[in-house]
Amino acid sequence: MKDSPEYLQKRAFYDSLLTIYGRKPVLEALEDLSLPVHKLHLATSNRRDQLIARMEQLASERQIEVAHWDRKGLSRISKNARQDQGVALDLALPHYGTADRFLAEEQASYELLALDGITNPQNLGMIIRSACAGGIDAILLPRKGCAQIDPLVIKASTGTLFKTRILRCDSLAPTLEKFRSAGAEVCGLSSHAEETLSSVSGNKPTIFVLGNETRGVGESVARQCTRLVRIPMQNNVESLNVAVTAALISFRHQL
Amino acid sequence: MKDSPEYLQKRAFYDSLLTIYGRKPVLEALEDLSLPVHKLHLATSNRRDQLIARMEQLASERQIEVAHWDRKGLSRISKNARQDQGVALDLALPHYGTADRFLAEEQASYELLALDGITNPQNLGMIIRSACAGGIDAILLPRKGCAQIDPLVIKASTGTLFKTRILRCDSLAPTLEKFRSAGAEVCGLSSHAEETLSSVSGNKPTIFVLGNETRGVGESVARQCTRLVRIPMQNNVESLNVAVTAALISFRHQL
Repeated sequence: MKDSPEYLQKRAFYDSLLTIYGRKPVLEALEDLSLPVHKLHLATSNRRDQLIARMEQLASERQIEVAHWDRKGLSRISKNARQDQGVALDLALPHYGTADRFLAEEQASYELLALDGITNPQNLGMIIRSACAGGIDAILLPRKGCAQIDPLVIKASTGTLFKTRILRCDSLAPTLEKFRSAGAEVCGLSSHAEETLSSVSGNKPTIFVLGNETRGVGESVARQCTRLVRIPMQNNVESLNVAVTAALISFRHQL
Repeated sequence: MKDSPEYLQKRAFYDSLLTIYGRKPVLEALEDLSLPVHKLHLATSNRRDQLIARMEQLASERQIEVAHWDRKGLSRISKNARQDQGVALDLALPHYGTADRFLAEEQASYELLALDGITNPQNLGMIIRSACAGGIDAILLPRKGCAQIDPLVIKASTGTLFKTRILRCDSLAPTLEKFRSAGAEVCGLSSHAEETLSSVSGNKPTIFVLGNETRGVGESVARQCTRLVRIPMQNNVESLNVAVTAALISFRHQL
């Protein structure tokens, strides 16, 4: 029953899981009692060394379920066989979901940030922190081309990740197309744009697309933008840090 | 003649000099043709190795004066005998000066950022970049308690350091007292303040004081503030990155 309430609830729970991997990140997450951990995954091929023993001990103390998999099974979970080191961990983030679910559910107006090619974890964490403080409704974070949420990002977000709605999608351009079809204004930030940020009325659902620091918004993503806007800058400065741009957008109604 | 035009002009030139030190920073600065280098200082005690030879060669190619000093003379120039490695370099920054000179000269209204305990070079560079783009008139940077301008900061400022007026002083609190006596509003940023940033009219000369990320504005500096203000934040976020705060202040009239 694909649309039974039980199925949908279960589905929503699994969408809220963030899987991290690698021995150091997983151990750090297990040691951080503020992190909502769901399940520890271990490959049966792991040599049972001190680190693995410590993980099992922490999982036992925290009453976290431990699942054992063969090497192939584990890499299906980590989705990164080359870097998982036989270890993965599911975090159950309360405000973590998918763009598709958001589109299916959301009716009222909203303001989102969409990230295109933000590869620096420090910047990603700072964007989340600024957007959360400024009251952005959610951040659209594609799996392709962006830094993924890992302990570095969580740290740089100074814990705000757990208060921020994060919407996952595979690739940004087709997802923006769906939002556009649903009536959203899609504003790409570009220092070459003629219009400025203040020209965006915010009268309808709006997505601001932030591009890579060096290359800006990518071509296929730019094609999905309904308009391009820039932040007016003085002294011939050419660009701002992307987390600063995120903050100026997020706070612009409140200063 | 302490107030002859020649003396004042010479004085202004020497105030605009920024001295960096250490073999790697100095070599990098010499290799960067965009940096306005004034003079290379070498200790006569230096072993004449490849690095020193390369510096001398670059100085010769760029027609930069080279001065030789005994160890003690060099440390008087670098002001950091422990870390200068026998090498110092004067950069002649066009917009680099002293708070005292600014106070003596400036008549019209202005908006400054003053930095108290900003120790992270990355943050200092980002603050300069955001303030420059947002049109802040100058940044008040004390020698005590803050990161100093070095090649890391220059890099993080993405070159905007050379377009930004930087006012040096020894210690921040007594300098703020002088500005206050001259009629400036001194606003300390504090997340515990009752008033918000939007309550600052900007009708008179205003200095915004940004404190250390962890400890905030220090006690002696807070005593020099005519008021404390906060940036209103949503989702119970407690603080923003200091460079983001600098950007929100700098851009608040333009968004």
